[in-house]
Amino acid sequence: MYGPGDVRVEQRDDPAIIKPTDAVIRLAATCVCGSDLWPYRGVEPVRQPAPMGHEYAGIVEETGSEVRSIRPGDFVVGSFMASDGTCEICQAGYQSRCAHVEPVGANGAQAEYLRVPLADGTLVATHGQPDAGLVPSLLAASDVLGTGWFGAVAADVRPGKTVAVVGDGAVGLLAVLAARNLGAERIIAMSRHQPRQNLALEFGATDIVTERGDEGVARIKEMTGGYGAHSVIEAVGTQESMMQAIRSTRPGGHVGYVGVAHGVEVPGEELFFAEVHLLGGPAPVRRFLPDLISAIEDRAIDPGKVFDLTLPLDQAAEGYRAMDERRAIKALLQP
Amino acid sequence: MYGPGDVRVEQRDDPAIIKPTDAVIRLAATCVCGSDLWPYRGVEPVRQPAPMGHEYAGIVEETGSEVRSIRPGDFVVGSFMASDGTCEICQAGYQSRCAHVEPVGANGAQAEYLRVPLADGTLVATHGQPDAGLVPSLLAASDVLGTGWFGAVAADVRPGKTVAVVGDGAVGLLAVLAARNLGAERIIAMSRHQPRQNLALEFGATDIVTERGDEGVARIKEMTGGYGAHSVIEAVGTQESMMQAIRSTRPGGHVGYVGVAHGVEVPGEELFFAEVHLLGGPAPVRRFLPDLISAIEDRAIDPGKVFDLTLPLDQAAEGYRAMDERRAIKALLQP
Repeated sequence: MYGPGDVRVEQRDDPAIIKPTDAVIRLAATCVCGSDLWPYRGVEPVRQPAPMGHEYAGIVEETGSEVRSIRPGDFVVGSFMASDGTCEICQAGYQSRCAHVEPVGANGAQAEYLRVPLADGTLVATHGQPDAGLVPSLLAASDVLGTGWFGAVAADVRPGKTVAVVGDGAVGLLAVLAARNLGAERIIAMSRHQPRQNLALEFGATDIVTERGDEGVARIKEMTGGYGAHSVIEAVGTQESMMQAIRSTRPGGHVGYVGVAHGVEVPGEELFFAEVHLLGGPAPVRRFLPDLISAIEDRAIDPGKVFDLTLPLDQAAEGYRAMDERRAIKALLQP
Repeated sequence: MYGPGDVRVEQRDDPAIIKPTDAVIRLAATCVCGSDLWPYRGVEPVRQPAPMGHEYAGIVEETGSEVRSIRPGDFVVGSFMASDGTCEICQAGYQSRCAHVEPVGANGAQAEYLRVPLADGTLVATHGQPDAGLVPSLLAASDVLGTGWFGAVAADVRPGKTVAVVGDGAVGLLAVLAARNLGAERIIAMSRHQPRQNLALEFGATDIVTERGDEGVARIKEMTGGYGAHSVIEAVGTQESMMQAIRSTRPGGHVGYVGVAHGVEVPGEELFFAEVHLLGGPAPVRRFLPDLISAIEDRAIDPGKVFDLTLPLDQAAEGYRAMDERRAIKALLQP
């Protein structure tokens, strides 16, 4: 990315092993993330040309001398955050905040090859080579599925609960899928876009609410006996969406926020008297990967449906454009 | 309270039963709360003379026709928030946000008699008449003990954990006591006042940290292998204390905030990347009252030690002054 709206596909040097804990993988597929649109839209500054992409699945090409858990030829999925897997934070399940965390995206996953640091703590191998049809779902696991899942877990989704999801991007839609799989009784997707509403319903939403802001909050309250939802997942990252999430939650309920916050300020007094649980941040996708990979292999879930546009890697710019213009939910790129 | 710094004791009409769910109690003791100092110091406006006080323990004088669970003559303790005990929010343990919540303090508990609404859902009777020596502890249960306890529960204090407490007022000190009783391994009290440090140590603190702000955060990190504490209880309510609490907590850790927020704005980006659990608000004291009363009756805890000044009710103004000037931790008033 050279600047807002300016994405170019260029030939760069293939990545190589730098540290003995690295792996290099040949990507089977990669994609454009909703968070890639922040700099694309100029909301985040682009100070110098930057390699883009942080979602990946593919075959291990080479490993450093200290890598033990994966081998060349393995098909692997990893989180967008590399983690050592051994520090107290990783052990507690918050690998995205590992004491030695490194953003995998620094190397640019919208590419043919990717160097992944801390391979043992970061990558999870599939059980044998997956069918080509499973690759989109495995790719989704590396961020949007894992992030939606974390949102639902952070919002304490459980059987019998009423869940609301703010945001109808890939993460919001996969939070619906997660809520369904975690046993929620009622799942309210907040969306005003027909194709996204349809996918939300397919993923398990029981209700669609088209109102947003204060009207959206009023609608959720009305649907929940005046109390608000037990669990609300915030998957946008703006002031409006964050406050909509907090205000839609009943006292004692839970907000899981996974939209990367931009310009958000939470007023302390309102938060105090809202008396809701808050948890969010960059999703510790690695915590969920083993189970998510198994569920995908078992065809219990099909998160790959969020990819409604597939392009060859050299047309990456069109993938950004289509997502920016909301013509596509999420664009898969084939190297 | 007529205005900042202006507290007067006056003869007012005795309260009477207004609704059939009310009770009127004769106070055995009442007290001045740290939160009463916000208007006393002019931080909260005093628009008209207001009856003060919301902490109480005493003997039931009269009950409304629908009150079932308590009888005249019972010694009772109640929360500062009246709750119906039956709505979904109460049933989930968040009685301070009951669908029919009423602030008991509206009637002024710094008095001889107090009308308590929703008596069945609000008041808990002791097992027989308590010894006079237990009254201060039972009074503490009605707010500061219950609030400190909620802070510790909200911060997910458990055996083996390292806990930090920001704030050395009565609530912070009783959060130390709560953390000890909930099995915390290490309890770091942040205080620079010798008498409060001593009481913190008596209540179970294992360490005292005198630094605050960024230096306080650095000290907590240094004491916890660079990670931060597992659980941090915020018991002040200012921007500095809230950010100190969030920054002292490790990723995946828990902040329980019970200081009534004044002028606090939590920056969304920092909160996102902090990745800590947040829960706080007006404490649902009623949830904890039965257990706290039993623990006090069994002399397993002695929270009444926070009262280091006892005055007759007609010297209430001196109680405010002493707390404002930090000559006293907490003033008990005897009607």
